[in-house]
Amino acid sequence: MSLAASDTSKVADGRTTSELGAVLPLTAEVRDNHLFVGGVDMVNLAKEQGTVLYVMDEADIRTRMETYREAFRSRYENSDVLYASKAFLNKEILRIAADEHLCLDVSGGGELACAQAVGFPADRIFVHGNNKTPQELREAIAAGVGRIVVDSRIELARVSEIAGELGVEQPIFMRITPGVEIDTHEYIRTGCEDSKFGFTMLNDFAFKCIKDALEAPHVKLVGLHCHIGSQAFALKPFREAAHIMVELMDRVRSEYGYTLTELDLGGGLGVAYTADQHPASIDEFANMTTEAVKDACAEFNMPLPRLLVEPGRSIVANAGITLYTVGILKTLPNIRKYVAIDGGMSDNIRTALYGADYEATIANKANEQRTEIVTLCGKHCESGDVVAVDVSLQRADIGDIVAVFSTGAYCHSMSSNYNGQPRPAIVFVKDGEARVVTRRETYADLFECDI
Amino acid sequence: MSLAASDTSKVADGRTTSELGAVLPLTAEVRDNHLFVGGVDMVNLAKEQGTVLYVMDEADIRTRMETYREAFRSRYENSDVLYASKAFLNKEILRIAADEHLCLDVSGGGELACAQAVGFPADRIFVHGNNKTPQELREAIAAGVGRIVVDSRIELARVSEIAGELGVEQPIFMRITPGVEIDTHEYIRTGCEDSKFGFTMLNDFAFKCIKDALEAPHVKLVGLHCHIGSQAFALKPFREAAHIMVELMDRVRSEYGYTLTELDLGGGLGVAYTADQHPASIDEFANMTTEAVKDACAEFNMPLPRLLVEPGRSIVANAGITLYTVGILKTLPNIRKYVAIDGGMSDNIRTALYGADYEATIANKANEQRTEIVTLCGKHCESGDVVAVDVSLQRADIGDIVAVFSTGAYCHSMSSNYNGQPRPAIVFVKDGEARVVTRRETYADLFECDI
Repeated sequence: MSLAASDTSKVADGRTTSELGAVLPLTAEVRDNHLFVGGVDMVNLAKEQGTVLYVMDEADIRTRMETYREAFRSRYENSDVLYASKAFLNKEILRIAADEHLCLDVSGGGELACAQAVGFPADRIFVHGNNKTPQELREAIAAGVGRIVVDSRIELARVSEIAGELGVEQPIFMRITPGVEIDTHEYIRTGCEDSKFGFTMLNDFAFKCIKDALEAPHVKLVGLHCHIGSQAFALKPFREAAHIMVELMDRVRSEYGYTLTELDLGGGLGVAYTADQHPASIDEFANMTTEAVKDACAEFNMPLPRLLVEPGRSIVANAGITLYTVGILKTLPNIRKYVAIDGGMSDNIRTALYGADYEATIANKANEQRTEIVTLCGKHCESGDVVAVDVSLQRADIGDIVAVFSTGAYCHSMSSNYNGQPRPAIVFVKDGEARVVTRRETYADLFECDI
Repeated sequence: MSLAASDTSKVADGRTTSELGAVLPLTAEVRDNHLFVGGVDMVNLAKEQGTVLYVMDEADIRTRMETYREAFRSRYENSDVLYASKAFLNKEILRIAADEHLCLDVSGGGELACAQAVGFPADRIFVHGNNKTPQELREAIAAGVGRIVVDSRIELARVSEIAGELGVEQPIFMRITPGVEIDTHEYIRTGCEDSKFGFTMLNDFAFKCIKDALEAPHVKLVGLHCHIGSQAFALKPFREAAHIMVELMDRVRSEYGYTLTELDLGGGLGVAYTADQHPASIDEFANMTTEAVKDACAEFNMPLPRLLVEPGRSIVANAGITLYTVGILKTLPNIRKYVAIDGGMSDNIRTALYGADYEATIANKANEQRTEIVTLCGKHCESGDVVAVDVSLQRADIGDIVAVFSTGAYCHSMSSNYNGQPRPAIVFVKDGEARVVTRRETYADLFECDI
């Protein structure tokens, strides 16, 4: 995104809503010029519940969870899919993930607390983070979480000590930084050498630390983890990472005489944020990673480990849309047309933070062509408060309901109360029914903690 | 900030805490190698209250509020200072602003609700925003706010209509975009032509709309407002803006036969985020703006209007520090040394969002020289989660308390629960006493709205 250089020569794409490709939730359709998701009229829903409103297509979420599980199970029996809860977290999504037999990736005590609040089976919870506090580690070990993904030598000692105090043997992974780079925003590229995460392989550091982990009391090292970054479109780096990890597991076997039985390749499959993007499918991702692991294991004559992957964004991003009401229109001749909506950087910081692109439609004009180029700006007192810059849209009127697509990931989870804005309600829609799963904040909620 | 290019040749500055210049809160001092603020030992406070912890130096805040008020009143009797509450908002800061006889700038219903909750005098409240919702306008007018700063023609009609319904005459300002650019981050540069804010002067649009405002029922146009941007170091653009605004007021008088009696020049005075920055003082800012208005009024033979300014950042930024505990140290040879703290982008998004720079010290080694270059990273599962890149710091150990300076503005107000991180408590310190004015969020708070 650049606010400085508006592209006044850009031409609207003329698409109608149905032509927006992979950014549409699975059940999105147009009826009587209105956008429907989950069989629910988004225009009516916005009027009933008010805006800003996060809407999640439950069928879409469940389908992607099932597709992930089946895509891996059918190719690689000893596999599990972890939902990366940082992408979108509330109680309902965790109930659904449990119902769909997924495992769970949590980072931080708050995510674990939410999982515990819905009774998510502790042994299916994996705890991540580059700096879990001692208190968080204690909570996790006491809860009996399945795996703690140890991120550093300091943390290894900490986990060992706390597990000893609690009288348990804690199964752990070690997070390895494989030195693989993917082509994505630098903020979410995590597998390269310069990373705060994991044990670097530079100077054989990771390999040496694995010995420490094998010798540490009260922990049981069962596998390795890596995560090469987020929103990846090319799959080849995953193959590369898998090979590096299996090779490392082979060295552990041959030099330390110990066979690691699990391998977690992290997340990272990209999603479409614009109509012209064509990310790899879940099946293609499963194919690439399972083949890569099988090939590498054949090469090194290793038994196939339990394989884990950690999708977050690719499960929830396209399932979610955000509904806004158009409040103000402002045309600056030869500069820009602003369509001001009633939310902004408080409910979606991604545009300002990553220069993210989005597609939008007017939910009550869904069958009409997008004939204008506009900047969807928010209501916050800041010029950087934009949701979509130079985006195609139908001709907007005051009171129109704008739907922004692909907002299911990293919008609610990063939302703030900037400018005293209460955070939106979240509605799950399915089979013609809408249910509020997270209520809208009130003004009183905003100052609940003030004394 | 660039995470991609760590400057391994950068040399630590060797400064001790006392040598950090204008980033220090007014009462900061070092005793027995510990950082004290407001006479309170920050190391003890961190142990007692836990970290992450926002600490505000009340004497610093009150001094700046008084300095602003005196700097303007002594030079320009008919003036008022508005505290821009978006910079830092909780009940206590509004109580202090009221106690210090400031007026208040709110944008959005949540900020107004907080002001009402502490009984802030409504007639001293100014309501801003490029897209106030009809509901928010109704709340503001019903509350009897002093001024509504109308941002567009659409809003003018809306205010007029709602005031009519409520049977009142609402005093209003019009926000003008004067076309003046300041040298700052594009996200917070708001006075240039390409802005979502205000009435543009292009094609004489603003001037024509002033006529509409003068003729609109149920509103009384009393003045004009402009805001040329935030974190400005050069003062000349304020002089330029003042001249443009007075010239416009003169045209209104001569062509429409109506004398506007108030002029709001907005906020924007920059603060020091690093030890080498030397922003203009409040007195210099007051001098420049009051002289500019007086000079322009003399030039156009205009009576002096009531003058308003809206500082936010320059009142609270340097008064605030954030305390963290060091959890993990990770040295990547020839790449970077990471010092991981127990917060990050959830309590301070500014580094990732604006590439902001900060100074830091180890509160329990405050008298020692900063001899290392490190990257202070957070605990969130994202590489962009950094608080300070390539910053000078004392040699860190696990458990050290790190104080990051100049975090009083736009940190708490933009904070999130990303990764399930509860938002920090806020402690005001003064005369050796610390009082919690906003309690720390609990895990239960995180899911309070979930059904």
